Amino acid sequence: MPLRLDFTNMMAGPLPGAAGITADQWALGAKRFTAAHEAVRARHASGTLGFIDLPHDQVALEATLAVAAQFRGTVTDVLLLGIGGSALGPLALRAALRPPHWNELDDARREGWPRLHVLDNVDPASIAAMLARLPLAHTLVLVVSKSGGTVETMAQYLIVREALEGAVGEARARERLVFVTDPEVGALRAVARAEGIVALDIPPNVGGRFSVLSPVGLLPAALIGIDVRGVLAGAAACAARCGSPELATNPAGVFAVLQWLADREHGAHVQALMPYADGLRDIAAWFVQLWAESLGKIRPDGTSVGPTPLPALGATDQHAQVQLFMEGPADKTVTFIAVAGREEQGSIPARHAERPELGYLGGHTLGRLLEIERQATAGALAARGRMNATITVPAVDAPSVGALFYLFELATAYAGELYEVNAFDQPGVELGKQFAYAMLGRPGSEAARAQWDALPSPDPRWQV
Amino acid sequence: MPLRLDFTNMMAGPLPGAAGITADQWALGAKRFTAAHEAVRARHASGTLGFIDLPHDQVALEATLAVAAQFRGTVTDVLLLGIGGSALGPLALRAALRPPHWNELDDARREGWPRLHVLDNVDPASIAAMLARLPLAHTLVLVVSKSGGTVETMAQYLIVREALEGAVGEARARERLVFVTDPEVGALRAVARAEGIVALDIPPNVGGRFSVLSPVGLLPAALIGIDVRGVLAGAAACAARCGSPELATNPAGVFAVLQWLADREHGAHVQALMPYADGLRDIAAWFVQLWAESLGKIRPDGTSVGPTPLPALGATDQHAQVQLFMEGPADKTVTFIAVAGREEQGSIPARHAERPELGYLGGHTLGRLLEIERQATAGALAARGRMNATITVPAVDAPSVGALFYLFELATAYAGELYEVNAFDQPGVELGKQFAYAMLGRPGSEAARAQWDALPSPDPRWQV
Repeated sequence: MPLRLDFTNMMAGPLPGAAGITADQWALGAKRFTAAHEAVRARHASGTLGFIDLPHDQVALEATLAVAAQFRGTVTDVLLLGIGGSALGPLALRAALRPPHWNELDDARREGWPRLHVLDNVDPASIAAMLARLPLAHTLVLVVSKSGGTVETMAQYLIVREALEGAVGEARARERLVFVTDPEVGALRAVARAEGIVALDIPPNVGGRFSVLSPVGLLPAALIGIDVRGVLAGAAACAARCGSPELATNPAGVFAVLQWLADREHGAHVQALMPYADGLRDIAAWFVQLWAESLGKIRPDGTSVGPTPLPALGATDQHAQVQLFMEGPADKTVTFIAVAGREEQGSIPARHAERPELGYLGGHTLGRLLEIERQATAGALAARGRMNATITVPAVDAPSVGALFYLFELATAYAGELYEVNAFDQPGVELGKQFAYAMLGRPGSEAARAQWDALPSPDPRWQV
Repeated sequence: MPLRLDFTNMMAGPLPGAAGITADQWALGAKRFTAAHEAVRARHASGTLGFIDLPHDQVALEATLAVAAQFRGTVTDVLLLGIGGSALGPLALRAALRPPHWNELDDARREGWPRLHVLDNVDPASIAAMLARLPLAHTLVLVVSKSGGTVETMAQYLIVREALEGAVGEARARERLVFVTDPEVGALRAVARAEGIVALDIPPNVGGRFSVLSPVGLLPAALIGIDVRGVLAGAAACAARCGSPELATNPAGVFAVLQWLADREHGAHVQALMPYADGLRDIAAWFVQLWAESLGKIRPDGTSVGPTPLPALGATDQHAQVQLFMEGPADKTVTFIAVAGREEQGSIPARHAERPELGYLGGHTLGRLLEIERQATAGALAARGRMNATITVPAVDAPSVGALFYLFELATAYAGELYEVNAFDQPGVELGKQFAYAMLGRPGSEAARAQWDALPSPDPRWQV
């Protein structure tokens, strides 16, 4: 069973009153989608959308598997240094496709595969604690940066490399480093060449947030025993379903058009992704980066656009965010991710039959409870006229996770066309980077220093 | 040093163009705040806002410490069953006040304190994996539910109790259970009484999402060696600073008024909380529940209100959400949490001096880098006219964490008055609960069943 998308609860008619997408709006979406699909096809044909090729990139897959095989059995721990897309993809893969709390399991429960640690920040407390407890003599360090110069990742690398050399010596440390970076440009590639450090390629036409199906995601996944061929196969199967310029038969197109219409026509600029599976929680975090950084943009006409993606988790967030989704402003969509096939999992024993809050639960299962809660939440939102949709996957397995990654990536490309923005750059973070370079004294940041110095100072009137 | 709140970058004048809160708007806020402060004072005086008393509740503290002491040295693992506020507070305390990845540390690094596991969902895969690896013979199980009947927590409890009895026998299992619940009502209290199970009180006038400074947060914290007296002392110190009806001297008032004015006058209905410290990441998740579930409400006049809180983490989210914050719609505020005193932490070694992306970093520290990045991001947002504020705490320590909890709780109470909603109920989740009860066959849910059956069915036209 491939993934399914049910969007009944997004549509006028099923939704009460004036809520939901009308037939006219949907027709507009279908028309605009055909153009968006063609634009994405043309951009891909011109060589700029490399993420579309990743599900079929056997060369990259084999290179990745070869590096992973080289370290099989030789390390107990893998430490990944990266930030943004370089960390969110690997984290989502580990959470979904390894048992929960993977790093807390003993060797037997991990079946000999290493732990995977991810440092995705420059908090000194985190790095110090990591280095204090890692068995550095048995650790492989992955340094992941598309540009090869990301400031946070470079700072981590300098510290971790020194610690690694202190533990195993200079020569051995070089053998316990793998870089994942652009094949040509950037400091990491230059260092790899100069020192003979193993490096895998992120294709030049694949941006960091679209890189999970490149060695960025596949190498750490393969190192800890994830079925990366299955992930790519799921992505390829999803791609095959998303080739159509007809909206009605293209799931990535439907997702993009629904969110775009909901935002444009109904003011739903907050777009929650709410999987009902602990293993898919980090896919919501990965989606947040993808959707926010791709679509939050200034258009050529100077207007700012971009929906705000919101991560949620069912059933947990029924006790946190759902009150807001139900009664707060009608400015949101919620997309649930349901998982089929769990009806028989987690039998609830009968006990305390005399207590009304407990007695009715015996004989049910957690799997059924979770799906009932999802349906109940979706139904309650619909009854209130709040737009929601449900993606159902057959299981939390490698093909489904690969399919979800690809679905959302392609939907993002379509949404970029619908919003009329470039979904593949991030010019808005440049000013902050320049300000930071100026304060750090990086050569070439003098202009930013002058602009920084001209900013208003903290005002004692506005402090408490 | 107590916590400080700098809101220069929220105000017109410092912000360019028409951005920011004007003097007139601030005057309105100050006036409305005086009324809100008086309303909160009156509600507290009438006995309904119990969270205000928690920092000074020595009886609850001693009872909690006594239970914690009873298990000191007898268990290696604590398993907490709870959802929403019952889980988010304990998770935030563990993340902030224990070393990173606490459960991955060996006994020596944990100084003999137990691990703390939290099950906050009913995913059958998570619970099965937890039970498969927990040493149940050496595990204490906390069951935490204000109402004593939360469906997810009850289901967890039924499963875990059976597993516990299987591992240690019926009598011993009773001694390895502690309930934290209402002192009078609900199934958990009734079971505790009937079976002699130790139970700690959540005061009747303290709702789940305001309960972190009650035994809900304090018991798991004390069990794993957190300085809970320090947490309460920090909360008490914050309370002392927030007694004033004058806006300018009341930090909780200032936070509430800023967010309310930004939403009302400037359309900033998305409100991000972005700590620059890994240890405070889960405080942002805790805040999301508090702010969303308290303020996302229908007002007496039928209008829906409530800002959307958004969790973020610096510097990590500079590579995920900041592009949207900079260039997306100007419908957001960002509140940073900065941590002082880290300037000397995490020295970056000099290396690769010949590479421009690496050479400039040597000699800096991670602590300084993190603070520079925060300042750069705040400055860049301000330069674009995007409203932001910064809360600075002296350290990630018990008093600061207690102060942050109290600051946001009191701010939520004030914001409820400003938005003219009841911040202490959650009527919007009732319909979904009733639908779930109906599908589960809980007695008394027949009316919901009829309403459920009348909802539109999934429509094949709206599926792909």
